[in-house]
Amino acid sequence: MRFEITTEYIQQLRDVIERGDEARAKEIIEALHPADIAEIYDELNLEEARFLYLLLEPETAADVLVELEEDDRKKIIRILPSEVIAHQFIDNMDSDDAADVIGLLEDEKQEEVLLHIEDVEQAGDIVDLLHYDEDTAGGIMAKELIQVNENWTVLTCISEMRRQAEDVDEVYYVYVVDDDDVLKGTLSIKKLITNNESTKIRDIYSDDLISVKTDTDSEEVANIMDKYDLVAIPVVDPIGRLVGRVTIDDAVELIREEAEKDYQMVSGITQDVESTDTVWILTKARIPWLLIGLVGGVLGAQVIGAHEHELGEFPQLALFFPLVAAMAGNVGVQSSSIIVQGIANNSIGRESIWRKLLKELGVAFLNGVVLSSLIFLYNTIFSDSYALTQTVSISLFAVIIFASLFGTIVPLTFNRFKIDPALATGPFITTINDIMGIVIYLSIGKVLFGF
Amino acid sequence: MRFEITTEYIQQLRDVIERGDEARAKEIIEALHPADIAEIYDELNLEEARFLYLLLEPETAADVLVELEEDDRKKIIRILPSEVIAHQFIDNMDSDDAADVIGLLEDEKQEEVLLHIEDVEQAGDIVDLLHYDEDTAGGIMAKELIQVNENWTVLTCISEMRRQAEDVDEVYYVYVVDDDDVLKGTLSIKKLITNNESTKIRDIYSDDLISVKTDTDSEEVANIMDKYDLVAIPVVDPIGRLVGRVTIDDAVELIREEAEKDYQMVSGITQDVESTDTVWILTKARIPWLLIGLVGGVLGAQVIGAHEHELGEFPQLALFFPLVAAMAGNVGVQSSSIIVQGIANNSIGRESIWRKLLKELGVAFLNGVVLSSLIFLYNTIFSDSYALTQTVSISLFAVIIFASLFGTIVPLTFNRFKIDPALATGPFITTINDIMGIVIYLSIGKVLFGF
Repeated sequence: MRFEITTEYIQQLRDVIERGDEARAKEIIEALHPADIAEIYDELNLEEARFLYLLLEPETAADVLVELEEDDRKKIIRILPSEVIAHQFIDNMDSDDAADVIGLLEDEKQEEVLLHIEDVEQAGDIVDLLHYDEDTAGGIMAKELIQVNENWTVLTCISEMRRQAEDVDEVYYVYVVDDDDVLKGTLSIKKLITNNESTKIRDIYSDDLISVKTDTDSEEVANIMDKYDLVAIPVVDPIGRLVGRVTIDDAVELIREEAEKDYQMVSGITQDVESTDTVWILTKARIPWLLIGLVGGVLGAQVIGAHEHELGEFPQLALFFPLVAAMAGNVGVQSSSIIVQGIANNSIGRESIWRKLLKELGVAFLNGVVLSSLIFLYNTIFSDSYALTQTVSISLFAVIIFASLFGTIVPLTFNRFKIDPALATGPFITTINDIMGIVIYLSIGKVLFGF
Repeated sequence: MRFEITTEYIQQLRDVIERGDEARAKEIIEALHPADIAEIYDELNLEEARFLYLLLEPETAADVLVELEEDDRKKIIRILPSEVIAHQFIDNMDSDDAADVIGLLEDEKQEEVLLHIEDVEQAGDIVDLLHYDEDTAGGIMAKELIQVNENWTVLTCISEMRRQAEDVDEVYYVYVVDDDDVLKGTLSIKKLITNNESTKIRDIYSDDLISVKTDTDSEEVANIMDKYDLVAIPVVDPIGRLVGRVTIDDAVELIREEAEKDYQMVSGITQDVESTDTVWILTKARIPWLLIGLVGGVLGAQVIGAHEHELGEFPQLALFFPLVAAMAGNVGVQSSSIIVQGIANNSIGRESIWRKLLKELGVAFLNGVVLSSLIFLYNTIFSDSYALTQTVSISLFAVIIFASLFGTIVPLTFNRFKIDPALATGPFITTINDIMGIVIYLSIGKVLFGF
């Protein structure tokens, strides 16, 4: 029933393609879900993919296109003539997917494709959708939905729905509007099938309505759908008229993307990459943060270099550079990532920044006491320099306090100034904390060693 | 239409509670969605929450309970008598939520609550559900669904659906079974409303069916629903009989949780915590990784300590300890997190481990050449020791290569042995790479400085 791609399966398919056996290849892919075909495409080279693609029915081809990664989609769409794009793909897509595809083209080609679309209503919907910013509800909504008038009866409603349902893939909710198309509420399928045919919609619809505006941020749309467990949410214009709906599959994609972005930020990767990307793309995504780390390392070297003379005298001071720097980095990443995650999933709480810092101070204090005591114990046993023992413990404590507070303040500040707080995690925090760790360590060493 | 909690709003509500103004408080919360009430609860103290909770209608109280964080839910459920739990909550919940709630209780109390449930069918469903492992499809599915027999007509089907729909919150799909309850396919609402009343279900249902087994891993269930854009997925027993369905809201929760877990791992946090948790919980979640970091730092100190004499002679060597250690850490985290993410979202590709390592080697080589050249340039200009210039550049290059390969191999190996690969990200990789960085740096320094 379900399908799992194995190396053997791909090899088999490749053999079929190599033999040019169209009939067998068609048989194989016709049994598959478009999402599976898209997954197979990832494993084939361009020639092989092209061979398979030409065997697909237009409707399946459109579905597969929607499922492909944006890069692959671009490759296909850019080499096809406008007419083929319009008839093969756009005519077979929901308006939101169609707008996404057309959005990938250059302005001139966009117009050409639009002129080739046969269904004028579809073309109009796409033009409407292209106006919205892609990070808003308007940019991710589809125009296809089922709407009924509050003055209709269940019977009229069902026959109207039959007509409208032609264009809609899945009916989750029926939206109820007034004569001016202003959204009044929703009618659940359950209500519809459990009520009498002559019942007025006005009497059975639910006005307990959660909707978003066309300019609502798309991430917020996803969070609202998640919070209220909605599979679709209606989108209204500034005067409340129903203009579209966002479905849960798009919201899930947004939630995943957002989580991946934050994950990559904290790991020091600046672009959305996958292990299957090319060496060049992977390097480009990774080197920016490494450069920041390098600059941080150089600054650290300068701080230490300013004490080179003292180091010659007390070389044992150098033993704990990596420890202090690493702890500062680890603590900072922990602090900042808790804040970033709290902001991302809206669980940050409404307590003031001062209370957050106070709490963080509490955590840092506990961690600091435990870790500093342990390292004090270690050095008391294994080191013969009491000055070193003191320096390491005191500075480790100070560093943990500093790194915790810094790791808390920076993402909160970023967020206040509308900068993505996730930028403040990972290598950024680590690098600054590394340097500050060394500065604190050497400053305390200065006092205790008396240099 | 939507609702946002503000500090003022909470303050207002608190005032009402303090005045003991039940009527006004009831008015306020009755206007809210259960998910919002649950969010407000997070902001109140236990006394205030209790005051509000007692004002809720049983059905709303049940919904709010479902929306609460597990810790808070436990607190409420553990202090209530079995009878109240059964009548107030369980009778008003879907079977999956009910099983989750009962699962929080101790064995003895579970039985008591089950005996108090009035609806025997509901009690039976819950007992069934409690048998399944909570990380499987069986553990997250609900028993409530709408099923019709393939031999019925659309008319019988609709009247049967009316009866069944009483128990089901949302109708997304109608499942079609044969006389033995074996799942045959699905019937979309669209098909149902666009077909004639006398049409046989057998002729209109879709047998293009995606289902999971009761023992399918719950994360896999979520991934399948995401991949195929499903809002609900049927669950079958080993002989294919329909036993339940998983809805998208549960899948979204799983996807979010999984993403958060990986995010926390890479940030060095070992438990699922939020910034609103207590200082104690936050400390417990953070200190394990810091201890590992501390041990790593101590090992690093020992490696350096073995060269203390040479350091006294060439103190400038110490300048680049933090740089080398930090770069090793950063590179390792990048490599491992790309692998972990690939494993998590199934995009890891089916190429062999050797090809993956070869690609990673390519990325490491490019990064290494760029970063080593830059630091070579820096040292050529600012350092008067050619041996140091060479040591830093060569060891930085070697460290980047090592950390990249190590960061790739470890999560892949963990995954092969069924250990969560996310464990191999963050502080674990950083710590080992830190030490190895110092070892490589000092080994190369040994040769070039000739000590």
